[in-house]
Amino acid sequence: MQRLAFVSFLRGLNLKKIESSKEPPWFRYLHHKKQQMADGYSFDDPKVIKFLEDAHKLMVEEALVKGSSKGAKIVDFVQPHLLENKLDLTITEQPEADDKILDACKKIIKYSIKTSNNRFYNQLYGGVDHYGLAGSFLTDVLNSNLHTYEVSPVFVTVENFMCQKLCKIIGYENGDGIFGPGGSFMNILGIHLARFRACPNIKEEGLYGQKKMILYTSDAAHYSLQKGASFLGFGTSSIEKVKTDDMGCMIPEELDKKIEESKSKGHLPLFVMATSGTTVFGAYDPLDKIADVCQRHGVWSHTDACWGGGALLTKKYREPRMTGVERMDSVSWNLHKMSGALLQCSSLLVKDKDILIKCNGTCAEYLFQPDKIYDVSYDVGDKTIQCGRKVDTLKLWLMWKARGDSGISERVERAFDNASYLTERLRTTEGFRLVRDKFQCTNICFWYIPPSLRGQSESPEWWQKLSKVGPAVKAKMVTEGTMMIGYTPLSAKGLVNFFRIIVGNPLTTHEEMDFVLEEIHRLGKDL
Amino acid sequence: MQRLAFVSFLRGLNLKKIESSKEPPWFRYLHHKKQQMADGYSFDDPKVIKFLEDAHKLMVEEALVKGSSKGAKIVDFVQPHLLENKLDLTITEQPEADDKILDACKKIIKYSIKTSNNRFYNQLYGGVDHYGLAGSFLTDVLNSNLHTYEVSPVFVTVENFMCQKLCKIIGYENGDGIFGPGGSFMNILGIHLARFRACPNIKEEGLYGQKKMILYTSDAAHYSLQKGASFLGFGTSSIEKVKTDDMGCMIPEELDKKIEESKSKGHLPLFVMATSGTTVFGAYDPLDKIADVCQRHGVWSHTDACWGGGALLTKKYREPRMTGVERMDSVSWNLHKMSGALLQCSSLLVKDKDILIKCNGTCAEYLFQPDKIYDVSYDVGDKTIQCGRKVDTLKLWLMWKARGDSGISERVERAFDNASYLTERLRTTEGFRLVRDKFQCTNICFWYIPPSLRGQSESPEWWQKLSKVGPAVKAKMVTEGTMMIGYTPLSAKGLVNFFRIIVGNPLTTHEEMDFVLEEIHRLGKDL
Repeated sequence: MQRLAFVSFLRGLNLKKIESSKEPPWFRYLHHKKQQMADGYSFDDPKVIKFLEDAHKLMVEEALVKGSSKGAKIVDFVQPHLLENKLDLTITEQPEADDKILDACKKIIKYSIKTSNNRFYNQLYGGVDHYGLAGSFLTDVLNSNLHTYEVSPVFVTVENFMCQKLCKIIGYENGDGIFGPGGSFMNILGIHLARFRACPNIKEEGLYGQKKMILYTSDAAHYSLQKGASFLGFGTSSIEKVKTDDMGCMIPEELDKKIEESKSKGHLPLFVMATSGTTVFGAYDPLDKIADVCQRHGVWSHTDACWGGGALLTKKYREPRMTGVERMDSVSWNLHKMSGALLQCSSLLVKDKDILIKCNGTCAEYLFQPDKIYDVSYDVGDKTIQCGRKVDTLKLWLMWKARGDSGISERVERAFDNASYLTERLRTTEGFRLVRDKFQCTNICFWYIPPSLRGQSESPEWWQKLSKVGPAVKAKMVTEGTMMIGYTPLSAKGLVNFFRIIVGNPLTTHEEMDFVLEEIHRLGKDL
Repeated sequence: MQRLAFVSFLRGLNLKKIESSKEPPWFRYLHHKKQQMADGYSFDDPKVIKFLEDAHKLMVEEALVKGSSKGAKIVDFVQPHLLENKLDLTITEQPEADDKILDACKKIIKYSIKTSNNRFYNQLYGGVDHYGLAGSFLTDVLNSNLHTYEVSPVFVTVENFMCQKLCKIIGYENGDGIFGPGGSFMNILGIHLARFRACPNIKEEGLYGQKKMILYTSDAAHYSLQKGASFLGFGTSSIEKVKTDDMGCMIPEELDKKIEESKSKGHLPLFVMATSGTTVFGAYDPLDKIADVCQRHGVWSHTDACWGGGALLTKKYREPRMTGVERMDSVSWNLHKMSGALLQCSSLLVKDKDILIKCNGTCAEYLFQPDKIYDVSYDVGDKTIQCGRKVDTLKLWLMWKARGDSGISERVERAFDNASYLTERLRTTEGFRLVRDKFQCTNICFWYIPPSLRGQSESPEWWQKLSKVGPAVKAKMVTEGTMMIGYTPLSAKGLVNFFRIIVGNPLTTHEEMDFVLEEIHRLGKDL
């Protein structure tokens, strides 16, 4: 190190290019003497490359190959207060050796849920696409922020490209879009746009002097509207919940009534959030009719297609589910759900090309300098309220490019096909009962009725007993680690705990759907 | 494929475990016949593993080894309207071969900014830590969401662990925290908490009937407060900008005056956002005195330590910069900036352990079931307004564990040391002029005065000419690709375009600091 410092010192003296220096000659020497090269940071260092290789191998082998293999334990359950010790999270004063770090990674994998395994049916995402994984890795090695073209020329271009592709799929002729941190946030951003269109001066003046503004959604919609109403300053009392039909779809006539009611109270109807694929039943609201109502009243129409938007990608399932989507003012769509991108990959697409920037622009001069050498309309940072923004599109683009439109479409079709097979099996197999007659999406809800509860009168006590079955089966499932399916009650409809299974992983087959029934029966038959 | 389908069919018939099936025996046969295994998704497939290996090698070699090497071209500038074609973004109907996908990755790398190179001084982040990279990759292969312990036991545990570590560093005895999408968002979440503490009923009733609420920050603070004021429904007119001193630090007496003024107008003083490391000058507001003022008036105190929070990690630079930080009600801190985590890694730490969940809880029953087999207080999703949330802590934890507290601290000290060396060089080298006498952080602002402008009277015309130097040098810098440094004017203070250099990459040395001066002079001497 001392030799290096001396070389630096000599080089430092050779500064003819900078013209005469005002500093005394010993100044830099003193500083150079102190300065050493930082160890363990350079990618020239074979140890660094070796570590990355070893880590890559370990993760692919343990998390993906083993984790996604048939019959693998997909959860190794430990109670929360005990897990920290098992993981050995401790951070010491001094650095740890690479082999200890790799051991720590092994433990992280061991106790994590194997969401890449097709028997993970618990959430709206699942399955790891290896092209998407490469895209994620590429995003990370290039470590940059999505705000200016200056620091992210490629990411800005890829995001624009993907937004235009999604707009085209939706049917927006002159739309725009942006990616951001999750579907809830994208829904909330949609409300913010609606408010700006209705009353642009709120950006400056706030809500104080305004009429009460009303947000409408179905009684089966996602809770993000509640969070948004609170966050944006409207308050949750500004939400009107519109009745749904037997399938769980919003009834447009009821929406119309609610809007009329708000008007008669002197309130301002602001924003309708339809849902394309509800969280629990997967219901698709009738967008075309909702658009009619919104148009008649001049209300912003938005559909939360975070979950069910995948249907847009297939000829077979798009209609009638998404009919009228191109008439919505905005659409939120999570590509990390049915469409198979890695987490997170959430978009908001808007019909009006200019509204994102008009609504959110503040033109911070340290970031959005007008005198750059390129057309600064490519600086996308002012389209949202984030400053720095994680790049979420590269992985989506790479996966899509690799699989082609047909591959992406087939993945979604396969999910619908498996879901429909499973629905039939649940309908026709003793001990299982569908919560709804039909499901429009790939989340299917059902009860398992153990032999001890079959053939009895379905009294309130019976239902009370049935409500314990879901949690009990789930507890065994998690303890054995064979499979993961969520359960939920639906108190608003008086429904006790039922299973909600999400069918999405491309490795799932009809045979695996059969296994679901067998496994639930095995775990629950003695309850 | 037909053989597989037939095997599936035979297996499907063997369903004794499910008791008597109500479906006709041909039902599953018909379905099985249609169902094929999905190709190209299984990690058992050597092609899949091979692709991941090839992609890993390519990215490490091209983006990291070459990209971060000394003298590498760190930007290969292309005008925005031309880049899409160069990148070959096209997505076809049919899948693309793996070698074409790898070629596409190469192009993505070629045209991306090499932020891992130490000559990238343009933004508040930079440098790729290979342990952090492994942590990111691990996060992606385990692809899960940070809302329930059920699906993310490890991630919940790691986030809690890291939040507790950060709380301890700040000095919160009983604090809590959460990670989220960027510093702006974390600041905005801070305001939301302040509003909830002041008027919990706004969550339900909204802002309509309320007194006007006032947000205070310095005139050098980040623009996220403006975005937040608009987003949360306060309006930007609710912001009072407090004067700063010569260093760019908020003057506590001026804050006190502003608060008194608001009160006399009948407004409600709600939230003070101090800054620990301003975006342009790196100024640290005097937290201790600001806490006094806030305490006296019962106003929520927050510090935006997104940039300068790194100083907390060193004994040498913590005081006096962060003195009093433990008295703040909340602190936002981007660990992806000075502390070297990969993007994004933003935290909000709060003094009151319960406020996050009280403010944001909605208890969606499909996700936060109370009858799970573990203590559901470990389900962290209701602490914020996001539903799904990207895991940002695993990479931070892995990096920190590998480097030890000492390594993390050294990295920050090195940045301060380099910045101080650079400041001295700028102060004492002809042709350079510091915008401020001193800088408290590792962003340094200066003008380069080309020979043609030296020794002249500094008239408005002279300054007008000087304002063109930054953009012109930057244009040449970007065209040649040798280095990246940002420039900005500061209109509020009447300052024309100057350079703002961010010193943070651990590979930077005094010698490299010298290069900065040489290179700017080389590019600008003939202007």
